[in-house]
Amino acid sequence: MSKSTRQMKLGAFLMTPGHHVAAWRFPGAEASEVLNLKFYKKLAQTAERGKFDMLFLADGYSVSEKYAEAVAQTVTVRPEPITLLSALAAVTDHVGLAGTVSTTYNEPYHVARKFASLDHLSSGRAAWNVVTSANPDEALNFNKESHLLHSLRYERAEEFLNVVTGLWDSWEDDAFLFDKENAAFADKNKLHTLHHKGEWFSVKGPLNVARPVQGYPVIIQAGSSEPGKELAARTAEVIFTAWQTLEEAQNFYSDVKGRLAKYGRSPEDLKIMPGVFPIIGRTEEEAKEKKALLEQLIPEEAGISLLSQLISFDLSPYPVDGPLPDLPELDQINGGKTRFTLLKDLAERENLTIRQLYERIAGARGHREILGTPEQIADQLEEWFLSGAADGFNIMPPYLPGGLEEFVDLVVPELQKRGLFRTEYTGTTLRDHLELKRPVHPAAFEDAAVLYSVN
Amino acid sequence: MSKSTRQMKLGAFLMTPGHHVAAWRFPGAEASEVLNLKFYKKLAQTAERGKFDMLFLADGYSVSEKYAEAVAQTVTVRPEPITLLSALAAVTDHVGLAGTVSTTYNEPYHVARKFASLDHLSSGRAAWNVVTSANPDEALNFNKESHLLHSLRYERAEEFLNVVTGLWDSWEDDAFLFDKENAAFADKNKLHTLHHKGEWFSVKGPLNVARPVQGYPVIIQAGSSEPGKELAARTAEVIFTAWQTLEEAQNFYSDVKGRLAKYGRSPEDLKIMPGVFPIIGRTEEEAKEKKALLEQLIPEEAGISLLSQLISFDLSPYPVDGPLPDLPELDQINGGKTRFTLLKDLAERENLTIRQLYERIAGARGHREILGTPEQIADQLEEWFLSGAADGFNIMPPYLPGGLEEFVDLVVPELQKRGLFRTEYTGTTLRDHLELKRPVHPAAFEDAAVLYSVN
Repeated sequence: MSKSTRQMKLGAFLMTPGHHVAAWRFPGAEASEVLNLKFYKKLAQTAERGKFDMLFLADGYSVSEKYAEAVAQTVTVRPEPITLLSALAAVTDHVGLAGTVSTTYNEPYHVARKFASLDHLSSGRAAWNVVTSANPDEALNFNKESHLLHSLRYERAEEFLNVVTGLWDSWEDDAFLFDKENAAFADKNKLHTLHHKGEWFSVKGPLNVARPVQGYPVIIQAGSSEPGKELAARTAEVIFTAWQTLEEAQNFYSDVKGRLAKYGRSPEDLKIMPGVFPIIGRTEEEAKEKKALLEQLIPEEAGISLLSQLISFDLSPYPVDGPLPDLPELDQINGGKTRFTLLKDLAERENLTIRQLYERIAGARGHREILGTPEQIADQLEEWFLSGAADGFNIMPPYLPGGLEEFVDLVVPELQKRGLFRTEYTGTTLRDHLELKRPVHPAAFEDAAVLYSVN
Repeated sequence: MSKSTRQMKLGAFLMTPGHHVAAWRFPGAEASEVLNLKFYKKLAQTAERGKFDMLFLADGYSVSEKYAEAVAQTVTVRPEPITLLSALAAVTDHVGLAGTVSTTYNEPYHVARKFASLDHLSSGRAAWNVVTSANPDEALNFNKESHLLHSLRYERAEEFLNVVTGLWDSWEDDAFLFDKENAAFADKNKLHTLHHKGEWFSVKGPLNVARPVQGYPVIIQAGSSEPGKELAARTAEVIFTAWQTLEEAQNFYSDVKGRLAKYGRSPEDLKIMPGVFPIIGRTEEEAKEKKALLEQLIPEEAGISLLSQLISFDLSPYPVDGPLPDLPELDQINGGKTRFTLLKDLAERENLTIRQLYERIAGARGHREILGTPEQIADQLEEWFLSGAADGFNIMPPYLPGGLEEFVDLVVPELQKRGLFRTEYTGTTLRDHLELKRPVHPAAFEDAAVLYSVN
């Protein structure tokens, strides 16, 4: 094969001390360091050494106490993403900084401001993973009795995003003059007030932070449901998604890319990056041994709890070595719908017991698991990348720091050798790395007013 | 005088590019760097070189457009404090990191979590300046038509603080075991759920961050009104306050310290740190020249705007070289009440015009201005410190980076020579620097339940 000119994008999805639910028990996993900045600094610098496009942090607003033993057996505490990414901005130079912040329990003014600030402090490396909150435990921490219905969460998310991007456009890029002589700090004609009044939010603006270095921080989305896909097609620049098979991933890829044109967007304007959980060995045998060890380390109740949370259905009353019970219909699930379907189908297709299913998902959590030597790992990434299933991958190391170091030291060089991945950063911002356009300020268009969400 | 054993506490209140409204026009002020992390890193490292107890950041959630020329003539954009302090945590080792976050437009779960995270990432250097929002422009950015009445803001603030400290106590200090062998990450009996249901908030908990390194991040308050003083006496560990005269400061000091006993607290449990705006010259003449230059650089509309905002009353319709108009009664002011009274009294006492008054406050903004040689500056700090008016000071450099560098290089050595300030950090956390006790987890008390806000 000749060298590819198209190169894959890579995110380092840092779930500490690893994505596998038993990661903290794995030899070498630094379980006691999950709140220590030095640990994250080392991870970030490893990712940067590996020329990753970005670090990626998930988030949640609760500790589930439903399964008491699971509280004892799993890692339930971690740094908050905005604080952690801001700290890492100061000790890295190139790698993007992507953080998850929910639209369900936040205010758009705060979110716009924090990401704008992070984008400035990092010289243009911020990304916002826009999610809705589907966990009933979270509602109880925000003055609610229950969480919003799926469809309402998406309505709110869409308006939230409009407000945030509108606030990022408060100042034109060249609004600041710094003209000491003429007492002109800013050109007041380049300040725009949003005056948003919608169904969910009333936000006047303007924002008290200059337009972000990247215009907008990169917008990432994870939802793969119907409203999720539509919102992504209109507004997302990266989709982080979960697929087990090449065919599913190809279908999703062509489905979402096909929706872009109606919003005046090109296929390159949206990068699709499925999650991948790689178990790397110097030999295939070593990789299999690691996998077996990880499975063996899963505390039973932690496994049941994780699976119950992923499918939004409590499996603890059922025999762990029996099959899944009859599950509710999809329309009665007010959690992550795509994940529910994916796991239910997997259990049926392969006739798995509860234990077998949680062992399967205790690492990748519904994402694609790949296993083998560095060459085999690279083969599996290359296959999806070259066959219309992915523009890149969000890499989910099973255990940290080892899983990331192995990927950087063993797999990245193999991808580089094949011309599939950069050998040096060529730009300075995350948009540069991802080959995404910088959003033009609406004032540059003739009829700028239509681009604001003035209701 | 023999060397004092009691030493003053110093905060570096960083308003960039300086506290004076014309700071950005001052020679050497780095006006274009107000969103650049390198600039703040230099400031933070300068403060740390000067052995400051902490950096201090104010905050606000709006750009006032009422005075169009003022938007053009003043600095209206700055980084958001939580992101900036987190970034600075990664490039400093000792200095405390104090950020302002309002209780009026935030959720306690988010605030508890971000400060807990910052406290871990900084190894115990976080402080929260607890404020209420009194600016009508801010309400419009958070789905409100107008801001809360003064008394309601304090009710909400008090409950907010209860929830936040309750969430910080979610995990006992020794809740985490990291016991790989026995699959025991945490001791589930050391997890406490808040179950708060109050007038303003319903927050179940627990928090998904371990108990902060400092137990609680240091609690700072700024309000000096009657409810502000009472809340501070019950809960604050530092008060940042504004007084012009020694007598006022002494009265406030003894008033607040006298309120502590009824909450079972000692005078040392609360440090009173008035703001001080120092204009430093190698000679007194040079200091006076700097002051004159700063006044000369104030754009007129920016001065009127600043003053109007500080007293919550629009002065723009009145002749700038005439006296203050008749102002409303104090009970009709729904803004900062203490500031209103202070400035009104100052104008009356000294018979000042609007211009003279804004020139007087364009730097210190109601705080104490001191001027002179390093020795004269030290004399003025020492006087208040030794006469029952202050436990330390929040230093407000007129222009940056110069104003902070002069304080560190010229005034700090003078204070050290007099035994009034540390020559080295002797502890590692901000509580160590401030000589504040680490809050004991309520579970250590016999009747722990009473310490939780269970309604």
